[in-house]
Amino acid sequence: MKRTIKKNPAEAEPARQLALHVDTVIHQTPFWASHAGDQDDIILSTRIRLARNLAGIPFPTIARREELDTVVERIGNACKSIRMLQPALTVDIRQCKTLISKALVERRLISPVFAESSSAGIAVIDESEQLSIMVNEEDHLRLQSIQPGLSLQEAWRQISRLDDELSEQVEYAFSDKFGYLTACPTNTGTGMRASILIHLPALSILEQVDQAIKELAPSELAIRGFYGEGTDIIGNIYQVSNQLTLGRTEAAIISRLEVIAYKFLDLERNARDKLLHIHRVRLEDEVFRALGILQAARVLSSAELMKHLSMVRLGNELNLIQEIDHRILNELMIFTQPAHLQLLHENITDPESRDVLRARLVREKLAG
Amino acid sequence: MKRTIKKNPAEAEPARQLALHVDTVIHQTPFWASHAGDQDDIILSTRIRLARNLAGIPFPTIARREELDTVVERIGNACKSIRMLQPALTVDIRQCKTLISKALVERRLISPVFAESSSAGIAVIDESEQLSIMVNEEDHLRLQSIQPGLSLQEAWRQISRLDDELSEQVEYAFSDKFGYLTACPTNTGTGMRASILIHLPALSILEQVDQAIKELAPSELAIRGFYGEGTDIIGNIYQVSNQLTLGRTEAAIISRLEVIAYKFLDLERNARDKLLHIHRVRLEDEVFRALGILQAARVLSSAELMKHLSMVRLGNELNLIQEIDHRILNELMIFTQPAHLQLLHENITDPESRDVLRARLVREKLAG
Repeated sequence: MKRTIKKNPAEAEPARQLALHVDTVIHQTPFWASHAGDQDDIILSTRIRLARNLAGIPFPTIARREELDTVVERIGNACKSIRMLQPALTVDIRQCKTLISKALVERRLISPVFAESSSAGIAVIDESEQLSIMVNEEDHLRLQSIQPGLSLQEAWRQISRLDDELSEQVEYAFSDKFGYLTACPTNTGTGMRASILIHLPALSILEQVDQAIKELAPSELAIRGFYGEGTDIIGNIYQVSNQLTLGRTEAAIISRLEVIAYKFLDLERNARDKLLHIHRVRLEDEVFRALGILQAARVLSSAELMKHLSMVRLGNELNLIQEIDHRILNELMIFTQPAHLQLLHENITDPESRDVLRARLVREKLAG
Repeated sequence: MKRTIKKNPAEAEPARQLALHVDTVIHQTPFWASHAGDQDDIILSTRIRLARNLAGIPFPTIARREELDTVVERIGNACKSIRMLQPALTVDIRQCKTLISKALVERRLISPVFAESSSAGIAVIDESEQLSIMVNEEDHLRLQSIQPGLSLQEAWRQISRLDDELSEQVEYAFSDKFGYLTACPTNTGTGMRASILIHLPALSILEQVDQAIKELAPSELAIRGFYGEGTDIIGNIYQVSNQLTLGRTEAAIISRLEVIAYKFLDLERNARDKLLHIHRVRLEDEVFRALGILQAARVLSSAELMKHLSMVRLGNELNLIQEIDHRILNELMIFTQPAHLQLLHENITDPESRDVLRARLVREKLAG
């Protein structure tokens, strides 16, 4: 696997004990979206998360208030001395403004459930948004690494190191028989979920996505929408992740997902070739129309943006469109989400005005 | 009525006995499309035609071959000495290539029935395409004047003069009781049909066209599509014309149509104001999307072009779009018609290739 990542700010810089301001983080482009990654013409990002709990303290759902406070204090302190997290943003979820917590959900740094939590809980996020931790979500700890492109090994290397460093300071709930213990039994064992975000526009145009999923993804894998469980497929982007966490090693889970990822890559590449060679004119027509609409529209819903963005991304990857930076397309996906837009213009609250603002932002970004 | 026509080439130049070549005419922009006209933000063009027959010769449908030849010879000779027709293009309809005759239909210079005629017949067209004559269509003579914008008086002045000059050289079939005699009794009397091409996008967006037609156009008027009788409404362009030719003077018919035209103008202007003031954002969105698609598409059907062109024209007239010359929009309508496209690239015969060529032509024209 050819690695194209040049720089990893979470590791490259010396530990700084600076506290980041959430507004800064919300307005920057995350590492996964601004950096090149292996196979990133089709795979947008790779994510691994680990579920962990502290020994001797009940799971968050049944813990008392003081116990939740204890967990926050212990993990909060431990994080301060973990170099790869620095500089870190620490968000107290009860103090956090709704709009900010929604934006963190849109960045896939915290879960929707956690965003609405009224119990003691914090999120710790490194500057580059490669590493993040939710404290007192469903489990005491949810560790996450997001990387650009197909980067299961790198994501695993980072999350595993974070996990090791934390485990030196706190004692995890672990059973020799079951592995890591978790609030929900479906996470018990490795506590790991690995997933990739994969963009399948050509298979979608040729109406072969369902067939591909049926063939490639047996029951151990889950296919979901952009924002995970229970969300719709938008912009031809699919999240493929493991279902099983028990009875397999982390390495086996990762390797299995990687094999599947390459099979999806093959199918999508073949479909792209087919479109290019057999339906080139129609493909160019769709690609340039999508770009034309994004550059022209004065009102743009999120769903319509994602639809056209998918075609523009495809056109870009196939060199039909040359002038657009890959990074711009990722940014358009991130900064046009509802909470992000509202953070730009806090007086805008109705969806109609948001659609107007979204259209303006898209025109500006695409104009360079 | 404010008149904005600056120059009338059919009259301004001295008579020349030059024969025009049909290829030249087919590639030029007709006078009505390249010149400003009164109310031309809404009314594209005005057309008046007169039906006439020669005395003592049966109508074309029942005339013998020699009689048809006689008609062609007499009218052909008469035309040569009529100054306002010079320089003229004379087309022998039996000798004319199918593609050329189709293009003449697309330019509204001859009728579809005449284009397919296998009897002796000619079309005489002045250089600017303001005046044209079909010889041996349904009647021996069909005289036509097309003018830009709302120009009923000017069209009448020209056609009336052409009619006078012809009548000095040939004798018309005329009855004191019925007026001019015609092959079909619905044309008897004045033999006149006056029509305007009116663009009603705002009424159409507000879904008020049917209501407007019901209120404004009583049974004496006919509402048709762009190409006249039996054709669909495309691009929100309606042809409004008189039905009655008998029992009214030409002046009365013209004045009645003019009154109706101004009522349509009022309704459309009110609808445009309403869109601008109440739905401005949605209107801008539709206008710029239409322009964006025309500038981007790689495949474009005639119907889709006319749909978007209607919105671009509206945006242009309302100064939402500033950079596009009015004349370009008229040219796009004319030169993207099937026969015109095929004349540009004679090797293109299938509709798919024509749609690709149309899209290219539109992009080039709109790029300046």
